[in-house]
Amino acid sequence: MEVDNDEYFKSYEDLDIHELMLKDKPRNEAYRNAIMSNKKVFENSYVLDVGSGTGILSIFAAQAGAKKVFAVEASKLADLSREIVKENNFEDVIEVVNCKIEDFKLPETIDKVDIIISEWMGFYLLHESMLDSVLLARERFLRPGGLMFPDKAIIYISPCKLPSLFDDWENVSGIKMTKFAKQLRAQKSSKPEIQTIKNDDLLSEDTVMAFLDLNDVSSSELDLFEFNEVLVAKNSGNFQGMCIWFDVLFPSNDHEVILSTHPKDEPTHWKQTIIPLPSNIEFLEESYPIAFKLIIQRNPEHFRRYNILLEILDPESEDVQHPLPCDCNLTKCILTKAHLASLANQNNFENA
Amino acid sequence: MEVDNDEYFKSYEDLDIHELMLKDKPRNEAYRNAIMSNKKVFENSYVLDVGSGTGILSIFAAQAGAKKVFAVEASKLADLSREIVKENNFEDVIEVVNCKIEDFKLPETIDKVDIIISEWMGFYLLHESMLDSVLLARERFLRPGGLMFPDKAIIYISPCKLPSLFDDWENVSGIKMTKFAKQLRAQKSSKPEIQTIKNDDLLSEDTVMAFLDLNDVSSSELDLFEFNEVLVAKNSGNFQGMCIWFDVLFPSNDHEVILSTHPKDEPTHWKQTIIPLPSNIEFLEESYPIAFKLIIQRNPEHFRRYNILLEILDPESEDVQHPLPCDCNLTKCILTKAHLASLANQNNFENA
Repeated sequence: MEVDNDEYFKSYEDLDIHELMLKDKPRNEAYRNAIMSNKKVFENSYVLDVGSGTGILSIFAAQAGAKKVFAVEASKLADLSREIVKENNFEDVIEVVNCKIEDFKLPETIDKVDIIISEWMGFYLLHESMLDSVLLARERFLRPGGLMFPDKAIIYISPCKLPSLFDDWENVSGIKMTKFAKQLRAQKSSKPEIQTIKNDDLLSEDTVMAFLDLNDVSSSELDLFEFNEVLVAKNSGNFQGMCIWFDVLFPSNDHEVILSTHPKDEPTHWKQTIIPLPSNIEFLEESYPIAFKLIIQRNPEHFRRYNILLEILDPESEDVQHPLPCDCNLTKCILTKAHLASLANQNNFENA
Repeated sequence: MEVDNDEYFKSYEDLDIHELMLKDKPRNEAYRNAIMSNKKVFENSYVLDVGSGTGILSIFAAQAGAKKVFAVEASKLADLSREIVKENNFEDVIEVVNCKIEDFKLPETIDKVDIIISEWMGFYLLHESMLDSVLLARERFLRPGGLMFPDKAIIYISPCKLPSLFDDWENVSGIKMTKFAKQLRAQKSSKPEIQTIKNDDLLSEDTVMAFLDLNDVSSSELDLFEFNEVLVAKNSGNFQGMCIWFDVLFPSNDHEVILSTHPKDEPTHWKQTIIPLPSNIEFLEESYPIAFKLIIQRNPEHFRRYNILLEILDPESEDVQHPLPCDCNLTKCILTKAHLASLANQNNFENA
């Protein structure tokens, strides 16, 4: 575990990662908007920034009027972060603390903080397991009724086309490369594959796979996500993989600030996470059912990694439970839906 | 050396690299056009493909009518390559040989080959030093008068603006990040930085830094490139770094095929190689001189790597030799140029 952590924090000394994050405008702007549109709660507040990196979020908080910001950063980047804070004239407000959040202590004069800010999201939200450190910080340092920025996180999933892993290899400057593509997909199945997917390549409506309320979710709830579902094709197309992405939301009294990594939104450095299938399952017509089981489980040997298991099921199998009603084109679902609709009509009639 | 090589070949078992290369359309199309527009020389020929990878070049050669192609690939990719050859129905023409070119032997019935094809170019042309293996193949296996594809290579250089490493950091969502940028540039100076540069960010005319005739260049000529030059700014702008790129050319009787990685051309996976300066040298007006010394030298400890040393010189120093005539705006150059022009006029007058 210790080695795992050392390598993890060391990786954040590489400035290329921070360059990537700082050039991610939707990310920066979402945090800035969320913090700036909450000036009333930031004014005169105590703020804790978990894994503060370059310190950009801490500076937003200071700009929004925080009394004191504790920027806790475990990697050596803390030194550079102090210079950045100074360049922006907030050295009196922001205290950069170079330690793990697990080792951090508030000054004796301060009991708890009012707000925790953190940009902890990894690929498919969970990768890197930094959220666990944020939850620990919440337990130890956030006052009752204090605010989490962000305070909600949602993981979405949709079956999708993956032309860049299938169709594009039928003809590469006149050469057939389908054998290459098959082996490429096999290689890419062994770890999460990060790609920008076109919105038009999604095959179903967006489906929520997990919803996390960051005010009360616990670390143990992050160990296992199991998802059994029958989705319905909204477009026709080749079913070639699964696409996973996430949104995070920030506390708000009026207009909600959302940082979305949806394929239809401006690309972020998280892109989308895809799970390619070994081969085309089938060409789906509109309204075809897609049944699958997805398990995302923390790797018992590498705390910061997850194992992802995707199983495609036969939607006509008796073991597969369709929703009630289900919009798919299987006869039993069409009949059930009609039956439920007629019951509802009858009920409405009786209540009228 | 042996370890170095093992790691090198092992890296080519990762299909992500081949995905990147096969999706590089300007690369594929240049080789295809060069080979297909030379059908007369490929027809009935013996061809050697050095470092054949997926086998795409060998298949082009077979399509162009080669009698036999020896596809020599040192990595385990050779197995997949055989499948690709079969998928394209050229298993009778192409023989995939899984060995280093240094260990390769032609069958006893064949003395030499007529053509060597190879895609050996690394970043800034020289990185990876694969050209040395191609030159060894030329010495051992190419018949006198045989053809090299490509047969010429040119390295270009231009001083450039690097807004993504300088100006963009003045304001990141309202935060000053120039301290970060400075450290980022320091980090990026320690290894070749591969980026796509805009043509408008080049500050001088393209300048040839090295020209290699692949029909007779020797390995030892690749050990050291030393380049002392005074260039003249064609645009005004901040001098923030050096941009290096390359072209390769193919044998031709009529229209020349060039694979160019110039910033003005369609981007390739080689992008451009940049050397960022630690800080802005100065704002250059048009016609300002830029004097520098660039040394690209093979790393004595890592055969496949080069050390790059860039020194910016004072163009007004007496040690700096300006070309004759020089188009820069220094008084001595303006006077010398006028003097040379009047001498030329006088000469023309006397010869008239």
